Amino acid sequence: MIWTYVSLIVAAIAIAVAAYFYKWVEKLPVAEGKIAGIGQLIRQGAFTFLKVEYRILAIFVSVVTVIIFVIFPSPIWEGKVGPNIIAALSYILGALFSGIAGYVGISIATIANVRSASAAKSGLAPAYMAGFRGGAVMGMAVVSTALAGTALLHLLTGSADIVMAFSFGASSLALFAKAGGGIFTKTADISADLAGKVELGIPEDDPRNPAVIADNVGDNVGDVAGMGADLFDSQVAALAAALVIAAPLGQIQVIFCFSALGLLASIIGVLVARVSDTGDPGKALNSGTLLTCGVFAVLTLVATLLSGFEVRIWGAAIIGLVVGVIIGFTSDYFTGDGKKPVYKVAEACQNGPAFTILTGFSYGLVSIMPSIIGIGLAALGAYKILEPLGGNFPMFGISISAIGMLSIIGMIISNDAYGPIVDNARGLAEMGDLGDDVLDITDKLDAAGNTAKAITKGFAIGAAGLTVIALLGAFQEVVKGITGDVIEFSMMDPLVFFGALVGAAIPAVFSAMLMIGVNRNSQKMLEEIHTQFDTIEGLKEGKEGVAPDYDKCIDIATKGAIKELIPAGLVSILLTLIVGFVGGVLAVGGFLIGNIVTGLFLALLMSNAGGLWDNAKKYIEEGNFGGKGSDAHKAAVIGDTVGDPFKDTAGPSINTQITVVSLVASIAASLFVVFSIF
Amino acid sequence: MIWTYVSLIVAAIAIAVAAYFYKWVEKLPVAEGKIAGIGQLIRQGAFTFLKVEYRILAIFVSVVTVIIFVIFPSPIWEGKVGPNIIAALSYILGALFSGIAGYVGISIATIANVRSASAAKSGLAPAYMAGFRGGAVMGMAVVSTALAGTALLHLLTGSADIVMAFSFGASSLALFAKAGGGIFTKTADISADLAGKVELGIPEDDPRNPAVIADNVGDNVGDVAGMGADLFDSQVAALAAALVIAAPLGQIQVIFCFSALGLLASIIGVLVARVSDTGDPGKALNSGTLLTCGVFAVLTLVATLLSGFEVRIWGAAIIGLVVGVIIGFTSDYFTGDGKKPVYKVAEACQNGPAFTILTGFSYGLVSIMPSIIGIGLAALGAYKILEPLGGNFPMFGISISAIGMLSIIGMIISNDAYGPIVDNARGLAEMGDLGDDVLDITDKLDAAGNTAKAITKGFAIGAAGLTVIALLGAFQEVVKGITGDVIEFSMMDPLVFFGALVGAAIPAVFSAMLMIGVNRNSQKMLEEIHTQFDTIEGLKEGKEGVAPDYDKCIDIATKGAIKELIPAGLVSILLTLIVGFVGGVLAVGGFLIGNIVTGLFLALLMSNAGGLWDNAKKYIEEGNFGGKGSDAHKAAVIGDTVGDPFKDTAGPSINTQITVVSLVASIAASLFVVFSIF
Repeated sequence: MIWTYVSLIVAAIAIAVAAYFYKWVEKLPVAEGKIAGIGQLIRQGAFTFLKVEYRILAIFVSVVTVIIFVIFPSPIWEGKVGPNIIAALSYILGALFSGIAGYVGISIATIANVRSASAAKSGLAPAYMAGFRGGAVMGMAVVSTALAGTALLHLLTGSADIVMAFSFGASSLALFAKAGGGIFTKTADISADLAGKVELGIPEDDPRNPAVIADNVGDNVGDVAGMGADLFDSQVAALAAALVIAAPLGQIQVIFCFSALGLLASIIGVLVARVSDTGDPGKALNSGTLLTCGVFAVLTLVATLLSGFEVRIWGAAIIGLVVGVIIGFTSDYFTGDGKKPVYKVAEACQNGPAFTILTGFSYGLVSIMPSIIGIGLAALGAYKILEPLGGNFPMFGISISAIGMLSIIGMIISNDAYGPIVDNARGLAEMGDLGDDVLDITDKLDAAGNTAKAITKGFAIGAAGLTVIALLGAFQEVVKGITGDVIEFSMMDPLVFFGALVGAAIPAVFSAMLMIGVNRNSQKMLEEIHTQFDTIEGLKEGKEGVAPDYDKCIDIATKGAIKELIPAGLVSILLTLIVGFVGGVLAVGGFLIGNIVTGLFLALLMSNAGGLWDNAKKYIEEGNFGGKGSDAHKAAVIGDTVGDPFKDTAGPSINTQITVVSLVASIAASLFVVFSIF
Repeated sequence: MIWTYVSLIVAAIAIAVAAYFYKWVEKLPVAEGKIAGIGQLIRQGAFTFLKVEYRILAIFVSVVTVIIFVIFPSPIWEGKVGPNIIAALSYILGALFSGIAGYVGISIATIANVRSASAAKSGLAPAYMAGFRGGAVMGMAVVSTALAGTALLHLLTGSADIVMAFSFGASSLALFAKAGGGIFTKTADISADLAGKVELGIPEDDPRNPAVIADNVGDNVGDVAGMGADLFDSQVAALAAALVIAAPLGQIQVIFCFSALGLLASIIGVLVARVSDTGDPGKALNSGTLLTCGVFAVLTLVATLLSGFEVRIWGAAIIGLVVGVIIGFTSDYFTGDGKKPVYKVAEACQNGPAFTILTGFSYGLVSIMPSIIGIGLAALGAYKILEPLGGNFPMFGISISAIGMLSIIGMIISNDAYGPIVDNARGLAEMGDLGDDVLDITDKLDAAGNTAKAITKGFAIGAAGLTVIALLGAFQEVVKGITGDVIEFSMMDPLVFFGALVGAAIPAVFSAMLMIGVNRNSQKMLEEIHTQFDTIEGLKEGKEGVAPDYDKCIDIATKGAIKELIPAGLVSILLTLIVGFVGGVLAVGGFLIGNIVTGLFLALLMSNAGGLWDNAKKYIEEGNFGGKGSDAHKAAVIGDTVGDPFKDTAGPSINTQITVVSLVASIAASLFVVFSIF
């Protein structure tokens, strides 16, 4: 049990580091002028959203808690109530821990944004540190709570199934946080851009724009809280899948070992991260990631040799990690500044918006291939490397490669949360009139954030891909536990094939519902903005002392987000249940397979096409192909607007959708076995 | 063998009907004035394309013939050369028959278009009959050659494997015809629209536009020859898959029985098709389809009872047919005029092009679900209905449901080929100055063609879905013939899973390459149009006697189409071979599964989203949301331009891509068994 305890200790260290960084950032000075007040508005807006979201979530979690109590791990009418109470409590705990991590993230991000903007007055290095350490608080908070929660539950109950319930709690929250936050942020972003930049010709982040605070709030609730919940969810799901598969093999300890050392490597990575005033913040982020990978590889090899784990297991973890890094850098190629795809899309903008869309969409389609083959190779390699150990070890290999890929997640989240913080800092610098020098620095920080984000997204999708394959293995294990049979999910079985086709349609419908939601909300917010411009005197002209009603826009985004995401989430869950009760575990297995395949397909397509359009627009704004205001720029803005819900709402929410559905399948498996029609 | 002979007889009747209709259309009068000359230009352009295409194809087919001779049905170094010679010849025959059907189609379509436009002077009914009977020539030609070729080969060789080679010949041609024609038609369409309507503000089909003839040629080579080759391919592939699976079960005769009676039903359907001058041509097309379905169901039931076939087999065929009709009408809902999705997209156009794209894309995503579930249900139902017969009968059920869905294909092709003919007629009426009354009539005929097209496309994708599932069954059967083992394609096998992920990426890369091809060619053609406008004096102003150089545009579209499609086709085929030689038959099985799932996904998405944008534009042009020239209309035009390569190039080519890859897998299976790395 030593590595379970080590996990708890490392998690405690990570929490201490987070607390230290939190204090460190909090103590940084705030520039004089309007900036503190505006920062306060953003902070309040973010917490308003969180409050509404958590209230709805509480209802959802309560309902699901009752359902879990009734059916999991075995239906209560079979007589054993004790484990069900524990499972229900674990479910609540999963949601709670993820919620706390999100809360901490929002809290630090809305402090760090103001500090980073203020620090930019003294140069790039201090501004970078404020942003990065703010992000690191989030990174440490997420990973430590995920690992500590899992370790604690396993220590107390000794059951891997219970961790599934914990994971489902985390997924429930992630679905709300990621999809809801995604709808919020893009509703605000699109409306602010259309009303401000396109219709009125005022700059981005202009304080006259009623949607401008909502836009900055969106960065926090979508990119910080949403992304944090998403990766919390991925990590716990990977742990849960690995534990379920590892339990019969007696390999629990190696999972905690690798996870603990991964977190330790991330702690080292975030502590040593630095940049000089003349340095490149993008390179600083990437070299931190690579350092963390190296530390992880060495630490785990030493631990493997000392603890007598199979070296092949270490190999599987490293395969996952290496493929993760490769996928990350591949998505950087497809969306990165200065690379061919971005250039081609920018070039196509000259021929009008139709060509912008077609070219971006086409390269988005092409970008699927390397990542999806990478995931396939990682799974194949991890399976094959553990095949000589026999039994279910090969499947365990896939789950451990997911653990490997997610090992450095603490560092990844830190980099990723840095993005919205400095993005906010840029907005604050603009709204707070901090001057052009500060804007230059925050622009540089922001650009580095975008590159880091592309890599993180590739990483997140890759890890999710391996995790959901492992969850499929876990589902097989769960069914074996119930029926005693190993089901193979043969695609020549019509139930499996039928399930696969239904499952394939889920990510499409789910993402369509989110995007239609963004559309609908943006319309409402645009109407509100027009009303304010028409009724508040002097607002358009920027008269001294006249301010728009920011809260109304925040309110529209909040209510709309919650309203739109609930049907999308329910459709996914209900269809899983319908397929299960109609076609039984075979159909559900197929359903998961179809869901994984098209889910990865669509997630990669949308994330990468969206990133491409965004960066093509930026490339034109740098003065290429006519620069700002040209027809090419107008076409690029249209591409970017299409890409917004692609890359920040639908694309990244699909991961969560797949995880939720996989866990629902495992949790309801005992019912499918008994009650299905076929 | 009686039904094999009946198939040959019915095919002969169909050829006679085609010949009769051909003469009938040919004898119709041609209006005086420019129209005959313009019609001649279109006809010449279409044959120019066919000539270039067939020349390249001949090279391709020669190479593949040699490969087939060397490896199929068994490698020649194993000693048996005879069957390989027959297989190679069958391959050539498949390509040849498909080529002839396409040639006949182009030939009649470029006669019927002029006659239909001319007949419109006397009213709607005669114009409709010219268009419909022209289309019926194509329908009869395609189905009779497909059925006669298959029956003849099976009669002469008694081998189902040989039919696979015949099918592969048809697929090779279809890949060129569909993808090449698709690139041609959209290159011309987009360029003509952008240069004409958008830049110069001249109407559609204005003879001053240098791309206008190429545009009308495109309708013929893309929609007539391409679609014909596609459905020829689907039908032969369905027959081949069914024969391979049926051979060990002794159920060959029922396949020929149902196919022959399906063709007979179609003959009856096309012979009785009529519309009155005040009637609705759309309803006439649909009621013809439903009549054919009814006749088919009755005839096959009677034949089943008289011939002593299992009634359950008839049930499987009817399941396929019913689901085909349902899928067809579902896609009509998602793309049809007056339905909610079209209204919503048109409404979104008011908010600019970004919302047009997002809304259309979202509804396109939603539209995947009913069709894909329909395909799944058909496969499941057909499997289950034949399960009591044991053995491999359930898989045979799936193949026979594909036969059932494709049984009325003669009628479907007739309806579908009607579309481009009347579309051309509309163009000829405009270019030939036949007056507003004629334009009104041709507009009505054209609109009916669009609805029929939507239904046909749904049908074609549904049938392709079932066919490729059956081809997967055939692949399993082929492997069993080589190794003696039944492989189950368990998704828990990492090779299968790896193959599935690679296969999932193929349709994405394939369609991206085609769309990038259309982009690139359109640029070239636009440049050519601009050059002509700049250098040919009096052209812009429409000076008497000044004509553009139409041939140059046709030449650009032709060469570009061939150049772009070859790499796209080769990538699909080479990756199949690579996966096979690396991962063996298990990986290839997974590869086919992944390819089918995302192929259907993408084909449905692209076809339906494209249709939606097209019809949303038309809805606005009818005077809604500001009508022609409004900002909403401009946004709708952008959506339509994006949708063009979606629905007419990439979307419908994916079917063929999947079929080709499935057949490559079966044909190369014996090599994968021996030479694969894993």
